[in-house]
Amino acid sequence: MAAFSKILVAQGGGPTVVINQSLAGVALEARKHAGIGQVYGALHGVRGIVNEDFVDLSRESAETLEAVAATPSSALGSTRDKPDEKYCQAIFRSLKAHGIGCFLYIGGNDSSDTVRIVAEQARAENYALRCLHIPKTIDNDLMANDHTPGFPSAARFIAQAFMGADLDNRSLPGVYLGVVMGRHAGFLTAASTLARTAAGDGPHLIYVPERAFDFDAFLSSVKANMDRHGRCVIAVSEGIADANHTPIATKLATHVEKDPHGNVELGGGALADLLTKQIKEKLGLKRVRGDTFGYVQRSFFGCVSDVDQREARAVGKMAVRYAVAGDRDGSVAIVRRPGPVYGVDHPLVALTEIAGKTRTMPDAFIAASGNDVTDAFRDYLMPLLGRDVPVPGRLKNDMVPKILQE
Amino acid sequence: MAAFSKILVAQGGGPTVVINQSLAGVALEARKHAGIGQVYGALHGVRGIVNEDFVDLSRESAETLEAVAATPSSALGSTRDKPDEKYCQAIFRSLKAHGIGCFLYIGGNDSSDTVRIVAEQARAENYALRCLHIPKTIDNDLMANDHTPGFPSAARFIAQAFMGADLDNRSLPGVYLGVVMGRHAGFLTAASTLARTAAGDGPHLIYVPERAFDFDAFLSSVKANMDRHGRCVIAVSEGIADANHTPIATKLATHVEKDPHGNVELGGGALADLLTKQIKEKLGLKRVRGDTFGYVQRSFFGCVSDVDQREARAVGKMAVRYAVAGDRDGSVAIVRRPGPVYGVDHPLVALTEIAGKTRTMPDAFIAASGNDVTDAFRDYLMPLLGRDVPVPGRLKNDMVPKILQE
Repeated sequence: MAAFSKILVAQGGGPTVVINQSLAGVALEARKHAGIGQVYGALHGVRGIVNEDFVDLSRESAETLEAVAATPSSALGSTRDKPDEKYCQAIFRSLKAHGIGCFLYIGGNDSSDTVRIVAEQARAENYALRCLHIPKTIDNDLMANDHTPGFPSAARFIAQAFMGADLDNRSLPGVYLGVVMGRHAGFLTAASTLARTAAGDGPHLIYVPERAFDFDAFLSSVKANMDRHGRCVIAVSEGIADANHTPIATKLATHVEKDPHGNVELGGGALADLLTKQIKEKLGLKRVRGDTFGYVQRSFFGCVSDVDQREARAVGKMAVRYAVAGDRDGSVAIVRRPGPVYGVDHPLVALTEIAGKTRTMPDAFIAASGNDVTDAFRDYLMPLLGRDVPVPGRLKNDMVPKILQE
Repeated sequence: MAAFSKILVAQGGGPTVVINQSLAGVALEARKHAGIGQVYGALHGVRGIVNEDFVDLSRESAETLEAVAATPSSALGSTRDKPDEKYCQAIFRSLKAHGIGCFLYIGGNDSSDTVRIVAEQARAENYALRCLHIPKTIDNDLMANDHTPGFPSAARFIAQAFMGADLDNRSLPGVYLGVVMGRHAGFLTAASTLARTAAGDGPHLIYVPERAFDFDAFLSSVKANMDRHGRCVIAVSEGIADANHTPIATKLATHVEKDPHGNVELGGGALADLLTKQIKEKLGLKRVRGDTFGYVQRSFFGCVSDVDQREARAVGKMAVRYAVAGDRDGSVAIVRRPGPVYGVDHPLVALTEIAGKTRTMPDAFIAASGNDVTDAFRDYLMPLLGRDVPVPGRLKNDMVPKILQE
């Protein structure tokens, strides 16, 4: 018998293509527990709590919840708000008024920090509120997790995008540069390397925020690849920075936009345009193309990892089970089991292990050159991509002997 | 019995995700015809002919050809070269030396013009060469065709991308603008409207090159949508131009790059950045995001229309059949059968009907407002997208009565 009868669940931060799996996991698991009468969903995260914008998820059919689970982006809406003490008092007023005993927040490290603040506030006010964080982020930058829900599907999108971009670049050779999301962690950019399935395949160069970006070294690596392959495919994190930690994207910007968490906005095509311009001017190359992958990498409807779907569902389910059975607040983590067969566990970890902290790529995942990944990274990522990842077919290309040019 | 024993096939222009279906169609169909001994593939289009860079496709297994057919981008490589008379003489020397009697070129309107020039040259030199053009282009801008291979799959990608982007924008409201490929024809941009499956769904505004772009009208339409929906999703063709036919993308550019065909390069993120900057500054809006869909829309490995696959295969097959059975050069078209059930025929049309001409969206497909499409366009596009297009699941959102704010 649960110690509470009403759960409130919300979704915060940037959406993913599996964040609704976690929502469905919460709503469907709650139905199995005696005593849980209702699951409310707050619209647009913590802002919806303050505004009492609640929907009753108990009135949604299992069929609807399954359809929503398979749909990208936060079905309840999201927010970038980060509550301070006053904001939290407004949250409590609302939770108390509606008799909520369990608060579940699906989000990244900013959202986990929100859960931590709300949980502390609840304790300070002696309000019985079970507070659990359910992880999600395509950046894969949460501490205490092997990986985070949303990352495997975004990684799969990036791998399939670079497979196609590399085949395109093979057919019309030149330089192709793709800018991938990732402010501080290069995991998603590094996922582009799973596009390589044959000798000479790109991406040939990988730039992540974990290594200082140097223009001269960059240009000489591009030139070396052009000399070797006659073409060069490059994956770059939006967050690459120089040795002084100045983001390359902001070096030539006239106006720097910040979100409510103080994060510099790295969107737009400026970084790709800056880098391709440098390559054209400094190396004298003509066919140089730059793309910025933008929102499609976190929201495209039709590219998902089934492993990611299952795990995103599982962390939602487990949050309800921990809330019912336990007496601890925390975050439901994904921890990989040791051994050759892929499997994960979902321990509950302390919110302070996650909140406000950022995990970056371990050194063992980054090649000594600083512009590639290691086999260890590829071994780490491969099982996360799920079933039926496409593999390019290739002609064997039996050359016909030349006659005129013999 | 074919009048020739050797076919040469090549791929030109921008790749698509089904262009290898046409290649496989040629190579596999040729095996069924007595007298056709070999199918050569020229690497990198007409340039490969001049350089005698030929591979023997007769030595590829059916399994390999099927795997290649399912793989995006031109397996033989492509080129942007457009042969002049001298170039054509070099082509003939090569074709004659290798005893080629049938030249099949898979490409867009620039490639069909190449076929036309080569065919004329062949006649002028009394060289027996059957010349056929096999259509492909994501731009859907070939005359005499209902649509072109490659367009349905790219359209499906754009529809699924905007489905995701619209759901993302619903969760974190603001302005989202996506720039879609299409220099002169707005078909692909207009395909974004297939993302709408419920009331209020974006994209809310569509800007195609067929209508003059006016900044003031654009900004007032964005404002109207923000007032109505609290958000606004916009699809813009890269080729939008003002009333004087000056591309908006080049209005603020300091340097204009042109390809060998004299086409202005419209890539990079400049147009999206320019338009989002205008929206921020003139409307005082904060959350304004712009993406440029780039190469992923023509090369992503994992989003394809099965209708497109079948038709791209069919035009390759039919080219061989026309070459064997007939005595005419031409282009294998896709013409829709009248009536309520979708079906197409593949007549051979004169090269002069296609070559160097550009088809744009008919007026009947563009709404009177100039910033949307009509139902006629949606009816036209729907059957091309193929099976299993995803549909978003939606919560019914039963609101819980407010207590504090009553």
